Amino acid sequence: MFTLHDRLKADTTEIAKLRLSIALLMNDSSFPWVILVPMRAGVRELHDLAPPDRAVLMEETAAASRAIERLYRPDPINIGALGNIVPQLHIHVVGRNKKDRAWPGPVWGSGAPVPYPEAALKAALASLKKAFQDELARF
Amino acid sequence: MFTLHDRLKADTTEIAKLRLSIALLMNDSSFPWVILVPMRAGVRELHDLAPPDRAVLMEETAAASRAIERLYRPDPINIGALGNIVPQLHIHVVGRNKKDRAWPGPVWGSGAPVPYPEAALKAALASLKKAFQDELARF
Repeated sequence: MFTLHDRLKADTTEIAKLRLSIALLMNDSSFPWVILVPMRAGVRELHDLAPPDRAVLMEETAAASRAIERLYRPDPINIGALGNIVPQLHIHVVGRNKKDRAWPGPVWGSGAPVPYPEAALKAALASLKKAFQDELARF
Repeated sequence: MFTLHDRLKADTTEIAKLRLSIALLMNDSSFPWVILVPMRAGVRELHDLAPPDRAVLMEETAAASRAIERLYRPDPINIGALGNIVPQLHIHVVGRNKKDRAWPGPVWGSGAPVPYPEAALKAALASLKKAFQDELARF
């Protein structure tokens, strides 16, 4: 049975459950940062997923990317599946900005997270949830 | 018309042309590092690709991941599409090793590449080309 890895649970808040993945918001207001976790037990690498799940994951990743683009107008969007620290397949989708703290390097390992104030967290979750619904309705 | 970005051309050697992407080997022997570039003009983000192309890209990415796993036995595989420096959509697929120079951080921006000696480059290209053929034949 699928259970979300403790580290992901600690670092994020749930936006919504999609068809395959839980969409999470990373609690770091430095970047618009969504994490998708396919709800499949024991999956570590992309190639461990069955091909039909991979196809859904690609569309959910594209939806996250478009949602972030619409809401935050970043330049560009970084997508990554690393697994060096958390051995449960998860896809980062992160809007970047030329003035953000990690630019032009990657966000992973770039420093301590800056947690959202409570009202800003609620607002981000609500707008991302709505944007996911809109984007996934297009497929 | 699609042309490969100069920076990618300078840093890599072609492994093979797949159905959608050129598969390139990053000329850095520190990591088994493949880059996939969809042969579509003007595409920057994953969500700029048409959905059928995205489906093919997912399968080519999984094939690269499995090829690297079979040949190099890494733990784990890092996948990334960043575009902070090169604004042409390209997917990194990198085998990681707990003793590599960037562990557990990301490979991007982790230091100067260590070019392959000529014979090792040829051998890596040949074994990756064969592994891609085997993996893509499975789909």
